[in-house]
Amino acid sequence: MAGGHWIWYNGDFELYHSILLHSRRIEFGIQLPTFWALSAPYPNVNFLKHFSAPEAFTFRAHAKGTGYLTLDGRRYNIGDTVTVAPGEHDVFVNLIEVHTFPALYIDSPHLITDHTWIANHAAGKAVPCGDRPLYESETDDPAVFAFSYLPLTPVMTEKVDGGMLYDYGKETFCRITLEGADSQKEILLVYGESREEALDIKEALVFERCSGQTSYSLIPRALRYLYVVSDTPVHIRAEYEYLPLQDRASFSCNKKKVAQIYDMCAYTFHLNSREFYLDGIKRDRWVWSGDAFQSYMANNYLYFDPEITKRTIIVLLGKPPYEQHINTITDYTMYLLIGAAEYYKTTGDAAFIRTYFDRFLTLYRFLAGRTDENDYVCQRDGDWIFIDWSDMDKSAPLAAEQILYWRTKYAMAELCAVCGTDGDGYIVSATALKKRIMRDFWREERGAFIDCVHPGAEHVTRHPNIFAILFDFVPERRARKILRNVLNNDNITAITTPYFAFFELCARARMGDLRTVQKKIESYWGGMLDLGATSVWEQYIPEHKGIEHYGMYGMKYGCSLCHAWGAGPIYLLGRYCLGVYPTDIGYKTFAVAPNCGMYTHMEGTVPLPGEDSVTVRMDRKEIRVLATRSGGTLLYGGKEYPLTAGEEFVLSR
Amino acid sequence: MAGGHWIWYNGDFELYHSILLHSRRIEFGIQLPTFWALSAPYPNVNFLKHFSAPEAFTFRAHAKGTGYLTLDGRRYNIGDTVTVAPGEHDVFVNLIEVHTFPALYIDSPHLITDHTWIANHAAGKAVPCGDRPLYESETDDPAVFAFSYLPLTPVMTEKVDGGMLYDYGKETFCRITLEGADSQKEILLVYGESREEALDIKEALVFERCSGQTSYSLIPRALRYLYVVSDTPVHIRAEYEYLPLQDRASFSCNKKKVAQIYDMCAYTFHLNSREFYLDGIKRDRWVWSGDAFQSYMANNYLYFDPEITKRTIIVLLGKPPYEQHINTITDYTMYLLIGAAEYYKTTGDAAFIRTYFDRFLTLYRFLAGRTDENDYVCQRDGDWIFIDWSDMDKSAPLAAEQILYWRTKYAMAELCAVCGTDGDGYIVSATALKKRIMRDFWREERGAFIDCVHPGAEHVTRHPNIFAILFDFVPERRARKILRNVLNNDNITAITTPYFAFFELCARARMGDLRTVQKKIESYWGGMLDLGATSVWEQYIPEHKGIEHYGMYGMKYGCSLCHAWGAGPIYLLGRYCLGVYPTDIGYKTFAVAPNCGMYTHMEGTVPLPGEDSVTVRMDRKEIRVLATRSGGTLLYGGKEYPLTAGEEFVLSR
Repeated sequence: MAGGHWIWYNGDFELYHSILLHSRRIEFGIQLPTFWALSAPYPNVNFLKHFSAPEAFTFRAHAKGTGYLTLDGRRYNIGDTVTVAPGEHDVFVNLIEVHTFPALYIDSPHLITDHTWIANHAAGKAVPCGDRPLYESETDDPAVFAFSYLPLTPVMTEKVDGGMLYDYGKETFCRITLEGADSQKEILLVYGESREEALDIKEALVFERCSGQTSYSLIPRALRYLYVVSDTPVHIRAEYEYLPLQDRASFSCNKKKVAQIYDMCAYTFHLNSREFYLDGIKRDRWVWSGDAFQSYMANNYLYFDPEITKRTIIVLLGKPPYEQHINTITDYTMYLLIGAAEYYKTTGDAAFIRTYFDRFLTLYRFLAGRTDENDYVCQRDGDWIFIDWSDMDKSAPLAAEQILYWRTKYAMAELCAVCGTDGDGYIVSATALKKRIMRDFWREERGAFIDCVHPGAEHVTRHPNIFAILFDFVPERRARKILRNVLNNDNITAITTPYFAFFELCARARMGDLRTVQKKIESYWGGMLDLGATSVWEQYIPEHKGIEHYGMYGMKYGCSLCHAWGAGPIYLLGRYCLGVYPTDIGYKTFAVAPNCGMYTHMEGTVPLPGEDSVTVRMDRKEIRVLATRSGGTLLYGGKEYPLTAGEEFVLSR
Repeated sequence: MAGGHWIWYNGDFELYHSILLHSRRIEFGIQLPTFWALSAPYPNVNFLKHFSAPEAFTFRAHAKGTGYLTLDGRRYNIGDTVTVAPGEHDVFVNLIEVHTFPALYIDSPHLITDHTWIANHAAGKAVPCGDRPLYESETDDPAVFAFSYLPLTPVMTEKVDGGMLYDYGKETFCRITLEGADSQKEILLVYGESREEALDIKEALVFERCSGQTSYSLIPRALRYLYVVSDTPVHIRAEYEYLPLQDRASFSCNKKKVAQIYDMCAYTFHLNSREFYLDGIKRDRWVWSGDAFQSYMANNYLYFDPEITKRTIIVLLGKPPYEQHINTITDYTMYLLIGAAEYYKTTGDAAFIRTYFDRFLTLYRFLAGRTDENDYVCQRDGDWIFIDWSDMDKSAPLAAEQILYWRTKYAMAELCAVCGTDGDGYIVSATALKKRIMRDFWREERGAFIDCVHPGAEHVTRHPNIFAILFDFVPERRARKILRNVLNNDNITAITTPYFAFFELCARARMGDLRTVQKKIESYWGGMLDLGATSVWEQYIPEHKGIEHYGMYGMKYGCSLCHAWGAGPIYLLGRYCLGVYPTDIGYKTFAVAPNCGMYTHMEGTVPLPGEDSVTVRMDRKEIRVLATRSGGTLLYGGKEYPLTAGEEFVLSR
């Protein structure tokens, strides 16, 4: 029997660490908590387990919080030695915890705490307990997130203007420890993603002033450069704080730069893969549902870790009652629900969906309760209709929001199916919504969706048209029209944000236009690489010069130089070049539809759930595919070739 | 301008202290958290205030939690010195707090934090902030409940069986501090409400074992006796922990014992008046809505402190979503809503009702969502249909529950009226419910309500009949029938619990049967006094002998010897003998309808809101009434005599 784990009410570990995480943003020395509501863990939790003892044994429970345990109805204190007779037993633990969240640990020959326990919050139905691999010992503390640490040594140290500048060689996320400080003197630390930022005390976003102690262990922050101003010498220790997620993916091709881009994207993605998916590690270092939706996609093509996707969905979802949209944004609520359905589709993790189904349902009802008389998602008090940063008329319901809403209804039907609940109503409602959307927003003569219905002004932007392709809202025939009339039409305002550009690249790749995608990877991501980037930036505008690249949102260094959405190529290359995607829940069956696009040769690996993977090599002569699990089919030239697990399949072109 | 107070999201102070309070029960050395769900404070809160500065000034904010402040949109850190120009300004503070709850403090010439600030939880509509008088300095900590302390000296110290027994002379609530202990040795402390309990190490409910330190500050607990077993001498300090609530009431009459009873009731009530109303100070020391409902009544006739009633309502109410009844009990949900309406009726505190109206409404909807096809409150999964401990058939809807539900609908209509919301629907629904109740449960020929509709067995218990009188559910004519056929009918099983006996005494007093009430006060409360009680017990059974009195719930010392519901005579004597009660919201007008009953002389004072009071003296010759505020009317002998504030009114009998 495996050892025990600390367990808690499912999701409360995540909500607690979300509160901690969202209390750590600073900008210009000012603390900036989120502007959306966070949910708290339950103060009191009941843990339950029925178990069978093949022989007599004893156990002791450990807890975060105070409370009691009963074995077959007899009460014990937490920490008492409990003797168990052979046979069937019921154990029940009631815990209350004031400052963090209740958690329980038992490790004994025949009773251990793990996800087979169930818990309620002294109300509600019991759900499977939460646990995590890294909390396996009675001395582990679930209130401390179990990161890994590696010492970092600066590649360069330089005296500048009375301070010391440390260059750690590349973008990193770093816990700084100061020792031997004079408690009477103030020490200034400026964190820079660029050298310029670190040395620009007035305009740098992240700095800290320490005084009053002789040693400090600071909240970990993003940096490549650290500038320290101290009157007296101080010993500085830097440690890389990270999650040891193992990449199981790779990509290379005849263009050497693409492999470099791929590695930079992977590194960027790792830096943003923390308690949850961050948008960027310097700023905001918050959890945003739109950004996270793109991260779930990259996850499955880099390290395929269901845990971080689940953790991110859990904190975004929070707890009912829902009084605002996720991150206050209508579209972000929908990405969350679609993301949950996609999570199930790629992992087959029904237990997670069942555990959180009530919350998904309650969130959907909140969303559906704010639509207009056409069942269109519209602006209600407190809602942020976002879609993208670009200018768009939001005074009437947006086509892009409605297409997302249509997809969300399908997502709900998919979640219902997992839970054995009738979801037909969602399909009926989606079908009716689609009819209205086509009537109100589709312009057959223009081969495009208009933005919104606004008397006298029928404007076409790329956004709803991209969604229509991305979410299979229109048949192939209309998708081709959209590609021609909108995506390939220079008269339609270009997407300027990398966030939405990713969706556009996905839509193009979906339509087989891989060359444009590949060119963009080389010019956009390659452009940053040429400028010395060690991680992908929040935004890259080729026309900018020098430190113009670091500015954004009206701040000189406002641009994050390590932004999760920059990892897009990992998904694009794995999904559309190597061509691996699931065709049944959890990759029970999957397709490999490789497409070199403009590359003459490519090879790479895409992870599958568990330890499995698919490796694809393709050049002008042949395609080689090796999948370590069964269920795969190679799709090429309009034909299907079944793959055998562990056997390389070779197809001559 | 008065000084600043710490402020927080309204109610979160109470919810936090409720979690602390409900984590402190121990029984036989085992920690016993509540079995119902508790609500947590919001992790992040926005505080807002518009203010006017007559001149330039500066201020600094102090906070529990981390975050920022903006003045007219410009950001500052908490703790920064902010300069304010003369004129109109908006200040906004965003705080996040991981372990307790966000709180804010500003005290400056022209800007202070108080209840005129509003707050939201980064979602939802803003409500007036919560504050409390005792958190007035920047060094005060709202996470520590501001009790008062008085050193206690034992009246007797005695060596018994290798331990030391301390007698503090009367029941008290005590913080014990140990000093000079040997950290290698274990010290045993046994808390006894009786001498027998303190010396009965095996059967005592509350004991603690200390080791590993040289000094201890223990969680305050109920005791009169403390038995300490320690191998080495240890210095013991005891402090009475209490709220300095000032009694503004008194009662005495020709029977001297009644004044003694009154004082014992008042002392008992003070001991249970803490963060919130406890049921009893030894066990459960929890907050129960049924017990609290009776405490609200005693409050208004002893010290008239709206704050403790509000705090108690707030913690019982918790936060949506409601997934269970208050304390899991159907009737307790209804007492809470009725209690809120009664609170408004006696205080006129519309601000409180408005602040919590959404929660009251959501709780009512939870209640109404669980009724049967007749709109009867019935047993649903997880519900505890309580009414009383006595045996009753609960397999079908109970008449007593329905009468409470009828009263609850009126309470909702009353709360709606405070908030300017249309509550007519509740009246319509209550009227329809009443018709059904009369049809199904009233038996005109028996002059009584039956318990529940159960084919073949029409049983009459006192409970619904008492409620019918108490809540004015039936007209005078039928109430008289009930008094004769049920309350004065020895064939109807007597009420055996002091909890429900209080309701019966109220019903009798309401029907003018004061003599029975007065006799019961002398026999029941006087009986305890004769046995040496220093506070009123949870239960007193005259037939019991010796330590039989201390037993309950199958535990040798299971009976609490200091139980809040024992304070009933304070209400009964003030409300029905002195005869003071409000006839309009917040005692804008009030009646004084004195009735000596079997007393030949009585005098006493009843508090009114604020600092006001009514003093009544009555003997065989005359009635003297002095009210310190206007609006009073003396009702006597079928006539009305208007009272003038500050002038004693004398009426010859």
